[in-house]
Amino acid sequence: MVKVAIVGASGYTALELIKLLLNHPEVEITALTTRQEGSPSIEAVHPSLAGRLSLPCENLTPAQVAARASFVFTALPHVAAMGVVPDFLAHRCRLVDLSADYRFRDAAVYEKWYGHPHTDAGRLPKTVYGLPELFAEKIPSADLIANPGCYTSTSILGLAPFLCHKLIEPKDIIIDAKSGITGAGRMPKLHILYGECNESFSAYSVGNHRHEPEIDQVLSQASGQAVETIFTPHMVPMDRGILCTMYARPLRSLSQTDALETMRGFYHGKPFVRVVDHLPSTKDVAHTNYCHMTARVTHGRLIVISTLDNLLKGASGVAVQNFNLMNGFPETMGLPR
Amino acid sequence: MVKVAIVGASGYTALELIKLLLNHPEVEITALTTRQEGSPSIEAVHPSLAGRLSLPCENLTPAQVAARASFVFTALPHVAAMGVVPDFLAHRCRLVDLSADYRFRDAAVYEKWYGHPHTDAGRLPKTVYGLPELFAEKIPSADLIANPGCYTSTSILGLAPFLCHKLIEPKDIIIDAKSGITGAGRMPKLHILYGECNESFSAYSVGNHRHEPEIDQVLSQASGQAVETIFTPHMVPMDRGILCTMYARPLRSLSQTDALETMRGFYHGKPFVRVVDHLPSTKDVAHTNYCHMTARVTHGRLIVISTLDNLLKGASGVAVQNFNLMNGFPETMGLPR
Amino acid sequence: MVKVAIVGASGYTALELIKLLLNHPEVEITALTTRQEGSPSIEAVHPSLAGRLSLPCENLTPAQVAARASFVFTALPHVAAMGVVPDFLAHRCRLVDLSADYRFRDAAVYEKWYGHPHTDAGRLPKTVYGLPELFAEKIPSADLIANPGCYTSTSILGLAPFLCHKLIEPKDIIIDAKSGITGAGRMPKLHILYGECNESFSAYSVGNHRHEPEIDQVLSQASGQAVETIFTPHMVPMDRGILCTMYARPLRSLSQTDALETMRGFYHGKPFVRVVDHLPSTKDVAHTNYCHMTARVTHGRLIVISTLDNLLKGASGVAVQNFNLMNGFPETMGLPR
Amino acid sequence: MVKVAIVGASGYTALELIKLLLNHPEVEITALTTRQEGSPSIEAVHPSLAGRLSLPCENLTPAQVAARASFVFTALPHVAAMGVVPDFLAHRCRLVDLSADYRFRDAAVYEKWYGHPHTDAGRLPKTVYGLPELFAEKIPSADLIANPGCYTSTSILGLAPFLCHKLIEPKDIIIDAKSGITGAGRMPKLHILYGECNESFSAYSVGNHRHEPEIDQVLSQASGQAVETIFTPHMVPMDRGILCTMYARPLRSLSQTDALETMRGFYHGKPFVRVVDHLPSTKDVAHTNYCHMTARVTHGRLIVISTLDNLLKGASGVAVQNFNLMNGFPETMGLPR
Repeated sequence: MVKVAIVGASGYTALELIKLLLNHPEVEITALTTRQEGSPSIEAVHPSLAGRLSLPCENLTPAQVAARASFVFTALPHVAAMGVVPDFLAHRCRLVDLSADYRFRDAAVYEKWYGHPHTDAGRLPKTVYGLPELFAEKIPSADLIANPGCYTSTSILGLAPFLCHKLIEPKDIIIDAKSGITGAGRMPKLHILYGECNESFSAYSVGNHRHEPEIDQVLSQASGQAVETIFTPHMVPMDRGILCTMYARPLRSLSQTDALETMRGFYHGKPFVRVVDHLPSTKDVAHTNYCHMTARVTHGRLIVISTLDNLLKGASGVAVQNFNLMNGFPETMGLPR
Repeated sequence: MVKVAIVGASGYTALELIKLLLNHPEVEITALTTRQEGSPSIEAVHPSLAGRLSLPCENLTPAQVAARASFVFTALPHVAAMGVVPDFLAHRCRLVDLSADYRFRDAAVYEKWYGHPHTDAGRLPKTVYGLPELFAEKIPSADLIANPGCYTSTSILGLAPFLCHKLIEPKDIIIDAKSGITGAGRMPKLHILYGECNESFSAYSVGNHRHEPEIDQVLSQASGQAVETIFTPHMVPMDRGILCTMYARPLRSLSQTDALETMRGFYHGKPFVRVVDHLPSTKDVAHTNYCHMTARVTHGRLIVISTLDNLLKGASGVAVQNFNLMNGFPETMGLPR
Repeated sequence: MVKVAIVGASGYTALELIKLLLNHPEVEITALTTRQEGSPSIEAVHPSLAGRLSLPCENLTPAQVAARASFVFTALPHVAAMGVVPDFLAHRCRLVDLSADYRFRDAAVYEKWYGHPHTDAGRLPKTVYGLPELFAEKIPSADLIANPGCYTSTSILGLAPFLCHKLIEPKDIIIDAKSGITGAGRMPKLHILYGECNESFSAYSVGNHRHEPEIDQVLSQASGQAVETIFTPHMVPMDRGILCTMYARPLRSLSQTDALETMRGFYHGKPFVRVVDHLPSTKDVAHTNYCHMTARVTHGRLIVISTLDNLLKGASGVAVQNFNLMNGFPETMGLPR
Repeated sequence: MVKVAIVGASGYTALELIKLLLNHPEVEITALTTRQEGSPSIEAVHPSLAGRLSLPCENLTPAQVAARASFVFTALPHVAAMGVVPDFLAHRCRLVDLSADYRFRDAAVYEKWYGHPHTDAGRLPKTVYGLPELFAEKIPSADLIANPGCYTSTSILGLAPFLCHKLIEPKDIIIDAKSGITGAGRMPKLHILYGECNESFSAYSVGNHRHEPEIDQVLSQASGQAVETIFTPHMVPMDRGILCTMYARPLRSLSQTDALETMRGFYHGKPFVRVVDHLPSTKDVAHTNYCHMTARVTHGRLIVISTLDNLLKGASGVAVQNFNLMNGFPETMGLPR
């Protein structure tokens, strides 16, 4: 049994993580932290956990956490995460960090897009990016994993087979992305009120969303060439789910059959990626750790459609995948099949 | 043309009011106020008004408003409203107040349920409660109308025919009420985030909702007897609409036909109440100023079902009805038929 | 490993059942049936199962099913179920029947409410009603379990503590029930189209819903007295979840603390019932097998609020609970905790 | 007053049309038709019209309709419309046809995409396409207007300013389109059940949607060059609203300011198109006849975002606009401003 702490337990991502870990046969949750005052019970923070976990959410220091747990999931906002990750590592905890703080190799890129100087820049080049379908061999030995962004995983998984095989133009890619509202977090803000989002669909952050440089960095790294995408996110009036519709220009003639075979070959043996013939919907993968994808070719253009649950395969589910690989457990352990 | 101001223009109720008034042939909107800084355009506050109204939302005093408008709709939170209503009246404006501040005849009841001393208590006994279906004769000559609560109108309209005709036990009434989320306002709070409300149904304020004493007061006044109800509100994952399912005990044998005839007779000639044979849904009345209602009798109990749009017939639509009556216009003017 | 068949695999209930059984450590799914032509793959029927189960949905006879499975879940419409259950029993299969066909002890009640003569009436009095919280001792040895209705479980679980302890008037009970739309099944009909249900709330089957006699029968049996309820169901625009708001008249003075203690005592040791102090929402229990409940006392009336997921604790989850008890497995096996 | 008939009154489009016409000062609705048996009241077909219109829905021949009305809106499925339009014209009715039957100039294109031979092909070249923002001068004198498709209007309105000014490459355009569910009609089918669509987002008809050739035809005609688009529609879990995100390649350097000015100039004086600086949402235009649009330039690509209400500006609202122009009424008459 691994003793596990969740640092930052009040958000939607943390809730999903706790639910997964409660069903994981090799995990004991030993600490939950929050900056809320008064050490509320986890049931007060997340009523759905009533009677399922009796720990309070405490305002603990990294040292206090490390005294109780050897493995830490940090589910903090960016900037806050890099304030504690070095401490946890110094206390010999291993970590999966669900924030953006360790996803970039280059501190300058981080600082440009996140608007803060990076206080732990030296660690960036050696941090492993936790997308198991691409980097499975580096994850087991890592002490710190940068868990990927939700849009990022959806986009990368769909495009990687074609970029790695050099089948598409790397600088003529459009990612039209759509996400459920939980992707925007659980802090009370006007634009995520029910009355604003419900029965509404809109684009946001056009041309300047922070997942765009993350997608470009990882696809460039994975495919060995400079990849540049245009990324347009939208908000969908539903709780969870991301679907990306991606448009690319084949470098040579490519049939739909070729495209599907390329994807199937690339993900052979990967337990959580399903290449399907039909057009998948977010509901097919909601509440699961699966990513469903397909491809179409029309007017000489390749269209890739990829979908996953932003809170699970896009956040907490892949975090547990990374945890499993880091601890030598089967990759699927504790994740509903 | 009546020059009209909306004081407190940033909420959902104000938005609906503005949309109605833009289509009212006898209204010119001359002032909009907000406490937000910087006099934002109304388009910045409500993007749906882009190009439809070019007024800014200003932080104006009652005197400044009164210099531009002879009629004022106050769409402020409670307590704030009674801070400005006396000033508007002193400046000879006529008003419909959409807050709860002038709904109670007895300041002690107000203070008990709203937790604030009433600073304009002398005006309470003479303020007219603006439910046109019950008090149409008092509204035309009033300078100040207390616009009813949304749950309140739904409940009162359904029960009044039976209580006024002394057909049901006045102290054995259960109102099981359900409302869309816009009823909770537009201030960013955790419990009205999309991620909290969507795909969720729950009761709240059981045994202590502020509309309960309002319902009891008005039904007692209208029927000439002490009425006591049990009122249980619930939140429904939808934008707008209230439906009340009300259970009462007939004082003598009452068939379903009797019940429907009682309702039809009571509302004869009232343009916005429709007694229907089928079971109505909130969607039937959404985006309209209608109240649909029906009745069933089962196991010797009367069940009344009443539904309306909380933002229109439950707030801004009835406010325009009151405005029309106060100004001698047809009751239906500017309200889509 | 128990070899299990699901008979009638195309509905929402069957989908949830399949997902649960795929994660059950003692189950192998060996047959899926449908009346659709052409033996479609389960992935064609339920795209969310892509890559998770490779069985086709076949049009199989009970004998063919019994050759492959020793345990059968029948997820058929009423009437269809009693057409095959005797055959399965003759082939020595054990069954959980998710239809209404075996829930009534008295064929005349069934025939009155379901409008069909019962073709297997002799089996009714000896069939065990599968609500484990009330009838756990009868379930292990049964060969046929009548799985309860979803509204029924929600209502019975909330009221049983008070009726069994004779704390409330058994003939003055109002159940105001609200359900998500999946409760209405997956057959294409106008009233469950998205455009009809979305953004709408309405009552239906007022005074004549089929779950009312089921509730009355089981509560009468469990409490040893004649119980009569008034049951009013409503449709909520959400996928899943039932919440019942129940009004009862205490037979003697009852405080809120008494009420909560009564419930906690009654469900002590029951793994899937949680008595909570706060007002629960359907979202707290969605996608789980838990029932959350609380109580309030106001105006001398007891209000009980009970909520569960209609597809899980209200159907497929309790079916797996019954399966576990029938096979001597831990009651919680395969059900996420 | 114009006597107006609605032929095919049972769908969502017809309901919106009836609501608009009830508030139109120059319209009297004199006939409603349906193929349903028994001449149901309009209230039985659309409960929201209870008490607002007392006409039955009858199974009438064109001759019977023409005896009561001089203007006809046909809201029939394709193929059915061309079966009656010639009869109405022969009876000297003027028409707006909301189906696709008269939208194409070339019968071969219709037959390829709709799979039926066109039975009134001779009328196609002379039928006016009813998009008033582009073809206002041809509409007043027409006897038959082909009302545009909903995706079509959204896409064309967004792209026309740039194509007509030859600012973008006409064969490198991607239209990523998203629609609420009412766009799929009101016939009971599995894929539009609440339980299927709710909490789900998906693409459909990728590479083969019937609005693609309509968009290409109209944009080619309007801009005097061959336009070819890639059109990908998606379903959004909401009732109404379309938003198109469109990607085009500028032929010469184009700033965001240039783009917005181009749009504003193009739509100067058009009452229902609003070019906005912010990113519009479908909710901004829901329940209105407005189209909101904006533009961004990023990575050298032009992104145009355009949104409207598919049932109003995308169908019944523009139908009333066309009706107004055909009858010499102000373009905005009867349409909420």
